[in-house]
Amino acid sequence: MTQPLDQIKVLDFTRVLAGPYCTMLLADMGAEVIKIEKPGIGDDTRGFGPYQNDESGYFMFLNRGKKSIELDLKSPESITVIKEMVKEADVIVENFRPGVMKKLGLDYESLKEVNPHIVFASISGFGQYGPYSQRPAYDLVAQAMGGLASINGHPDQPPTRVGSSLGDMSAALYAAYGIMTALFHRERTGEGQYIDVAMVDSIFSLLESNVMRYTIEKIAPKRIGSRHPISSPFDIFKAQDGYIVIAVANDPLFKRLCLIMNQPELEKDERFCRDALRTEHVDELKVIIEKWLQAYTVAEAVELINDGGVPSSPILNIQEICEDEHIAVREMLVELDHPVAGKTKILGNPVKFSKTPPVIQKPSPSLGEHTEEILNKYKNMTLKN
Amino acid sequence: MTQPLDQIKVLDFTRVLAGPYCTMLLADMGAEVIKIEKPGIGDDTRGFGPYQNDESGYFMFLNRGKKSIELDLKSPESITVIKEMVKEADVIVENFRPGVMKKLGLDYESLKEVNPHIVFASISGFGQYGPYSQRPAYDLVAQAMGGLASINGHPDQPPTRVGSSLGDMSAALYAAYGIMTALFHRERTGEGQYIDVAMVDSIFSLLESNVMRYTIEKIAPKRIGSRHPISSPFDIFKAQDGYIVIAVANDPLFKRLCLIMNQPELEKDERFCRDALRTEHVDELKVIIEKWLQAYTVAEAVELINDGGVPSSPILNIQEICEDEHIAVREMLVELDHPVAGKTKILGNPVKFSKTPPVIQKPSPSLGEHTEEILNKYKNMTLKN
Repeated sequence: MTQPLDQIKVLDFTRVLAGPYCTMLLADMGAEVIKIEKPGIGDDTRGFGPYQNDESGYFMFLNRGKKSIELDLKSPESITVIKEMVKEADVIVENFRPGVMKKLGLDYESLKEVNPHIVFASISGFGQYGPYSQRPAYDLVAQAMGGLASINGHPDQPPTRVGSSLGDMSAALYAAYGIMTALFHRERTGEGQYIDVAMVDSIFSLLESNVMRYTIEKIAPKRIGSRHPISSPFDIFKAQDGYIVIAVANDPLFKRLCLIMNQPELEKDERFCRDALRTEHVDELKVIIEKWLQAYTVAEAVELINDGGVPSSPILNIQEICEDEHIAVREMLVELDHPVAGKTKILGNPVKFSKTPPVIQKPSPSLGEHTEEILNKYKNMTLKN
Repeated sequence: MTQPLDQIKVLDFTRVLAGPYCTMLLADMGAEVIKIEKPGIGDDTRGFGPYQNDESGYFMFLNRGKKSIELDLKSPESITVIKEMVKEADVIVENFRPGVMKKLGLDYESLKEVNPHIVFASISGFGQYGPYSQRPAYDLVAQAMGGLASINGHPDQPPTRVGSSLGDMSAALYAAYGIMTALFHRERTGEGQYIDVAMVDSIFSLLESNVMRYTIEKIAPKRIGSRHPISSPFDIFKAQDGYIVIAVANDPLFKRLCLIMNQPELEKDERFCRDALRTEHVDELKVIIEKWLQAYTVAEAVELINDGGVPSSPILNIQEICEDEHIAVREMLVELDHPVAGKTKILGNPVKFSKTPPVIQKPSPSLGEHTEEILNKYKNMTLKN
């Protein structure tokens, strides 16, 4: 066995982002992921830009290494084929709105009759039960309802959605951890089971200590921009040609920063001499630091501050991080040769295994690319169109 | 076997957030997690607020269900005890700066000699290799270097750290998925291995399609606040007493919104009649919608808009989400009885299993609570102090 999920078969009913990212995490580990797509149309994201030679970049990065079969979920023949496939499958993943799989006759209760060992994972906005379970689920809604938007952004600005789809991505990650845990359990006991992951629960989990601050102190944390709630100066600051991070978490580090800034008197200033006082006067301190930073470019400031023994870093934009040597060395951008799109660079897998590294070599499938292969396998079944 | 990770033993060398959250995800599934802590001091987070009866809420929520043993990693006797423990362990997790475990003689190369079946996971800021691997790792730095800060926030504001520690949380999640995958592989082959997860790689992975937009179009996405890059109005809007989400992703939904607002003429306005045009004139459209929203409270507006068939939701703050019925029903806040702190509510686990639900019943350990029990077990070893 060369990859951890060799011989593991995943029936993938997912669309758009959360579900496809989850099954991609399984495909990277060697699972055979069979993506069941709507005839003639396929996953919505096949129509999402950006495009390369008319292939969707969005679809390509989320569906690498998967197979595609076109099946009309409303046709009884398709359902028959799917049930044949379920007999040999190990995992099912879907991210329809709760209730849809049941209407199709493809819910866990129905399919475990066909294969009691199946691990069946559902990803949805609000979960399979609970008062909001039927609400529509956009990432924006999950971030808003999950509490994250309320603590993201600057105090004088509105609550802010995080600039990437964390509701989808975090639900996908929790589901991948759940599916692997369930597969491990099944390997030891033979038991299959059902897994329910909600985007809102996932976002709520990412709030980490913000939740404790409320449950213990009864104070709801608010938006505080980029700064640290307790230590200062620990924030993003403006230099001549852009922004930098300075991370001072204690008094000795602040003393060093004062020396770097050639303003040793600040260390004794009664507003700044202790961490708690600095946080109390954080706005005044920021003005002083940014005034000093006006004399330096980002590159100069980061070097000067680090050389003086205080942690500092630039803030990379998407171009800079994509071109960065560290990302290249870590194989976080992987070149893939797609039969239609040609050579393209897609996101790598951030888990680096010594014995069974993720293999990211097969491109995403064209719509229905494996329909014939798969139908032939399942008892030479053919479908009416 | 009642829980998936029954009989799985984790040696936990982690501190602060990323590592402890990862091993908590294993403890929730039934693993015996033995936290190795610095004598007399323990995990730094034992000194982080908020406190309840002098117990750190931060420590309590991240370390539930774990055992604590005090061991001085610089004493040869401790190293001897640890190597005895490694013989019986299944998983090791650590989040020191790269190189520290090697200096202690506790790196993977050394410990696989003791137990070749061990799964050993390291979580760090920049990973175990690559040009920046030795740089200090704060969540703020990971978010800045990973590209996320550059696309988080409003266009007229500086790059913004997300208001929770996503660098830590995402690295913990990727590591949990990696560890479970490696355990599954070990169950089938007997092979142990080493896993390396970096916060910067994890943050970079969360950027999802933003990366494609650069690699294919060579345009680096920028901060666009809460709005959708392609569809409008799909954003956060101000009502009388707070903010709401409105999610209009196509022309028919916009028509409905115009009817709800009693401004049917907008639908035919040449600035707003198609989705692409609305995104081009998104600022003007936002002014019109927010002017209309001045007449409604959040509750009124959300009801009115949803009733009209357009997705809308409130934006919950931390208090509201913690008190929300959905979160209660989904067991996302779990009451725990801690011997010192008393009753406290901590974050639940967002993965809902039908057969093997996470058990969150044992509180976090006091410092060294299990030292004697564990030392007695490992050949009645005792330590010089």
